[in-house]
Amino acid sequence: MVLPGRAMATFRLALIQLQVSSVKSDNVTRACGLVREAATQGAKIVSLPECFNSPYGTKYFPEYAEKIPGESTQKLSEVAKECGIYLIGGSIPEEDAGKLYNTCTVFGPDGTLLVKYRKLHLFDIDVPGKITFQESETLSPGDSFSTFDTRCQLLVYPGAFNMTTGPAHWELLQRGRAVDNQVYVATASPARDDQASYVAWGHSTIVSPWGDVLAKAGTGETIVCSDIDLKKLAEIRQQIPIFSQKRSDLYAVEAKKP
Amino acid sequence: MVLPGRAMATFRLALIQLQVSSVKSDNVTRACGLVREAATQGAKIVSLPECFNSPYGTKYFPEYAEKIPGESTQKLSEVAKECGIYLIGGSIPEEDAGKLYNTCTVFGPDGTLLVKYRKLHLFDIDVPGKITFQESETLSPGDSFSTFDTRCQLLVYPGAFNMTTGPAHWELLQRGRAVDNQVYVATASPARDDQASYVAWGHSTIVSPWGDVLAKAGTGETIVCSDIDLKKLAEIRQQIPIFSQKRSDLYAVEAKKP
Repeated sequence: MVLPGRAMATFRLALIQLQVSSVKSDNVTRACGLVREAATQGAKIVSLPECFNSPYGTKYFPEYAEKIPGESTQKLSEVAKECGIYLIGGSIPEEDAGKLYNTCTVFGPDGTLLVKYRKLHLFDIDVPGKITFQESETLSPGDSFSTFDTRCQLLVYPGAFNMTTGPAHWELLQRGRAVDNQVYVATASPARDDQASYVAWGHSTIVSPWGDVLAKAGTGETIVCSDIDLKKLAEIRQQIPIFSQKRSDLYAVEAKKP
Repeated sequence: MVLPGRAMATFRLALIQLQVSSVKSDNVTRACGLVREAATQGAKIVSLPECFNSPYGTKYFPEYAEKIPGESTQKLSEVAKECGIYLIGGSIPEEDAGKLYNTCTVFGPDGTLLVKYRKLHLFDIDVPGKITFQESETLSPGDSFSTFDTRCQLLVYPGAFNMTTGPAHWELLQRGRAVDNQVYVATASPARDDQASYVAWGHSTIVSPWGDVLAKAGTGETIVCSDIDLKKLAEIRQQIPIFSQKRSDLYAVEAKKP
């Protein structure tokens, strides 16, 4: 998820590290409760984790999938409006025209659906003796960006790393992405459930544009908060002016029409 | 510097963390001595650090700059041939047609100049109270790539980070680049000289395609070695197949003709 900078110069961001159970309605109810709690703590943008209303696993996706709009996203719209916040709805398994997607929705403070993003790069991994998992067994990839703003200031990734990639890459990739792009980076993971077929790493994190970890959860259900200071970000971009030094005469990243 | 994969499936890489003095001929002589020592240890590819024949600083570049071919690169060609190795000549201040460049040369085992690369992104930084430095005060940027192989397997960066960016970003960016591209990444820094006007971070490093640090220097003059295993790299690319999952239907990085 890419969120362009808003007019707010500083605001509070909260990540909901939800303990996901096998009961969809419970997941949605508890997610909304934690969103309310985060809003009480002053958060203006709140993110849920990847696959927040369903256990994460290809065998669960067909059973838990729903339309958008549908029961889960309706609740998200309502709680965003109730709290007057931007709500990044992590992701849910979406069903549309017989295909399944891993889909993120974003709602504005008036409850409007602002963005719907279907995961473009499905997660396939096969590390012998460690983990084998293929989203592509049941999911289809999306085919459009939610936005393509290369000057964005905050990247929020609802994500579910595992016990192999988590310790190796979770924090590294966030900090790398933050410094590469001089942006705030936040990741919202489900809480860890050691009994699940896919054990999420947890450790939802917020990283500064300098690459510093500002806030980091443990493995259990919790809310992670940090103030996001876009003046600080502007200072860092002035201190190391990588944007003005790009050589657009020599290379470019181009978005193609699908 | 980008080196495409060679036919060798495994080979030894060595980085020379040279203590750079103010005497150019001494720097070149000692660099060649350390290259010979690395070759004796079995290295087939050896890299010198950024700005290895001159102190690093805009006031030094005009005085130390030379043509390519010239006295320093002639010595590099000779030692590459003598040792039968690929030699990445770090960088030197180059003078051409009244302009100065920060230029890297690469020599083959027969002493042939394979690549000449003029730094494209000059280093400008201004962190108040910490460090202010502008390569662009005296240097001109290059305008061509040495190569544009997006399936390369080893990235070697001769680089001179400092006491501000070093602790914050040096290892992070290498490990990030390694995991993002599933490549080996190596960085060759000058040794630290606390009396210099620009104090280099040191800590020349070799990182695996999984993001693990395989070898890392301290701050003094030393040789850092690691075996590079391209079979291991191929395994990692199979385990997490990010290359086959790229959505070239949706985006592309394009090189432009200058």
